[in-house]
Amino acid sequence: MTTQTWSARLSELGITLPQVVPPLAAYVPATRCGDLVYTSGQLPIVDGELRTRGKVSESAEGVVHLEAAVAAARQCALNALAAVHALVGIDTVVRVVKVTGFVASAPGFSNQAAVLNGASLLLGEVFGDAGRHVRSAVGVAELPLGAPVEVELVVQV
Amino acid sequence: MTTQTWSARLSELGITLPQVVPPLAAYVPATRCGDLVYTSGQLPIVDGELRTRGKVSESAEGVVHLEAAVAAARQCALNALAAVHALVGIDTVVRVVKVTGFVASAPGFSNQAAVLNGASLLLGEVFGDAGRHVRSAVGVAELPLGAPVEVELVVQV
Amino acid sequence: MTTQTWSARLSELGITLPQVVPPLAAYVPATRCGDLVYTSGQLPIVDGELRTRGKVSESAEGVVHLEAAVAAARQCALNALAAVHALVGIDTVVRVVKVTGFVASAPGFSNQAAVLNGASLLLGEVFGDAGRHVRSAVGVAELPLGAPVEVELVVQV
Repeated sequence: MTTQTWSARLSELGITLPQVVPPLAAYVPATRCGDLVYTSGQLPIVDGELRTRGKVSESAEGVVHLEAAVAAARQCALNALAAVHALVGIDTVVRVVKVTGFVASAPGFSNQAAVLNGASLLLGEVFGDAGRHVRSAVGVAELPLGAPVEVELVVQV
Repeated sequence: MTTQTWSARLSELGITLPQVVPPLAAYVPATRCGDLVYTSGQLPIVDGELRTRGKVSESAEGVVHLEAAVAAARQCALNALAAVHALVGIDTVVRVVKVTGFVASAPGFSNQAAVLNGASLLLGEVFGDAGRHVRSAVGVAELPLGAPVEVELVVQV
Repeated sequence: MTTQTWSARLSELGITLPQVVPPLAAYVPATRCGDLVYTSGQLPIVDGELRTRGKVSESAEGVVHLEAAVAAARQCALNALAAVHALVGIDTVVRVVKVTGFVASAPGFSNQAAVLNGASLLLGEVFGDAGRHVRSAVGVAELPLGAPVEVELVVQV
């Protein structure tokens, strides 16, 4: 894997990076400062649409269940990689530095770590050892558009 | 605008940076590390006083309405710029890198993006293209002193 | 204090850094990027066990009271320093740059600043002026494992 490009690795995994999700408001999807690229907080939007809404719970009815939340976190990470790719090209990534994840949490839900693994494991699949990152995962009251999860990345290029 | 200083631009806009809000506790308003300046999370304090308190909602009574929250986010950004100015001088700013915003959200309020635009649009007015930043906006349960919004900045100098 | 190492200072204070808390999931405790070390969000785990659980309040029954939350924030900071120490050695620290703290907050609790002082004051005791940092403190709905507080650090080495 060491001589491979990340774009080749993505192909090998059958992953096509999505289109960049346009910012909801007056900001940009990613920005570079020296050798760091920061992304905006990414929601699990697919083809312009937020398909999963609500608070994450392991038990309650009418909310987002854990498996759906894990998949949503993975989508957030894909959207973040798309933002990085559009700015600097995915093959310039040296490593993933940091993941910050916010999970809209139903009362009593404390498995934010499992949700964010949807993002972390994707980064591991794609980047291997270069995908090892620090992470903070917290459970918040509400996220933009009613999203269940929001993920931001810092990567080194 | 390219040959203008930021302090001249602020004057042109009729904006006077406020006094730095003293930290609530054992930390400092801003710190520099290489070419990055980080600010502490700023509350919408004006003249030493938090004039807006409560959770943001678009519908409920007895809470902070959207327009007031937008204005509060703008004040947070001004306070953050004041912290930057006191540390390194506003005219040393090369660009704004990142805005992180926390909105104390009443149940069901998911328009954190609109609230944070109060901060983002101010940065755009002052810095133009150099004000384009990444942003994460989340809705949280409670903020210090009962503030409706808290904003931190990373800027490049 | 200027000619002293941080490890000597810790000894003088009677503080032994704990073992690094193993990540809950697919991430690492700390990572270095240039002269910055970022830690993962740290919970107040002691000897592999989260001894304090619940939401912080100044008044309610059945929750974590302020003093316990302050002690928990201090433990989070110790765990973060342990993560830094394991990666680069505590004596390479030049300064603390940033503390981000999340407090699981009972409704109406707005003294997140006092809770996070448990972390900030520890950093001041150990590092003196080099421990002066920016800080954001927010009150969130839920934290991993039901923890009352989570703290992440950025330090310069």
